[in-house]
Amino acid sequence: MRTILFAAALSALSFGAQAGDVAAGKAKAGVCAGCHGVNGISSVPMYPNLAGQHAQYIVKQLKAFKSGERKDPVMAGMVAPLSDADMENLAAYYESLK
Amino acid sequence: MRTILFAAALSALSFGAQAGDVAAGKAKAGVCAGCHGVNGISSVPMYPNLAGQHAQYIVKQLKAFKSGERKDPVMAGMVAPLSDADMENLAAYYESLK
Repeated sequence: MRTILFAAALSALSFGAQAGDVAAGKAKAGVCAGCHGVNGISSVPMYPNLAGQHAQYIVKQLKAFKSGERKDPVMAGMVAPLSDADMENLAAYYESLK
Repeated sequence: MRTILFAAALSALSFGAQAGDVAAGKAKAGVCAGCHGVNGISSVPMYPNLAGQHAQYIVKQLKAFKSGERKDPVMAGMVAPLSDADMENLAAYYESLK
């Protein structure tokens, strides 16, 4: 019984860590569209497409830009005001695009 | 006339810089499939999908992993043996996937 409760708690935690809000992410994504495209398909080949990308990977990169682990002068400025929840919402939004 | 020749030369140069060989890239991509999926769609959400990604962005990231500008212990090992031509071929292959 203890094992089952523990497994359920773990599952809830990991769901919580991944579940971004697509609509909230879309609302925050306006500034991203300049380089990554209105629908997550970038028209500038130097910048990555984000449409359909894994949310977990996007969150990891946003956090890496914020911590300075991954360096990019433009992205450093972009992520500075983002909370963890903002990042999860943006990632959920881009993952939801085709 | 001089301007036209110069423009043509520039155009040829920039084409040369981007044009990877899809078939050669596919032949090199076997080891990438472990994490990025057989068709460039990763089954592990921590790793990015590469299918349809811009070749220019992929080349830029591969070079950044090789130079150490972008740090990742797995990718550092993966890119170590790659030439610039290998990177362009891999990038052309992944860009060609849906």
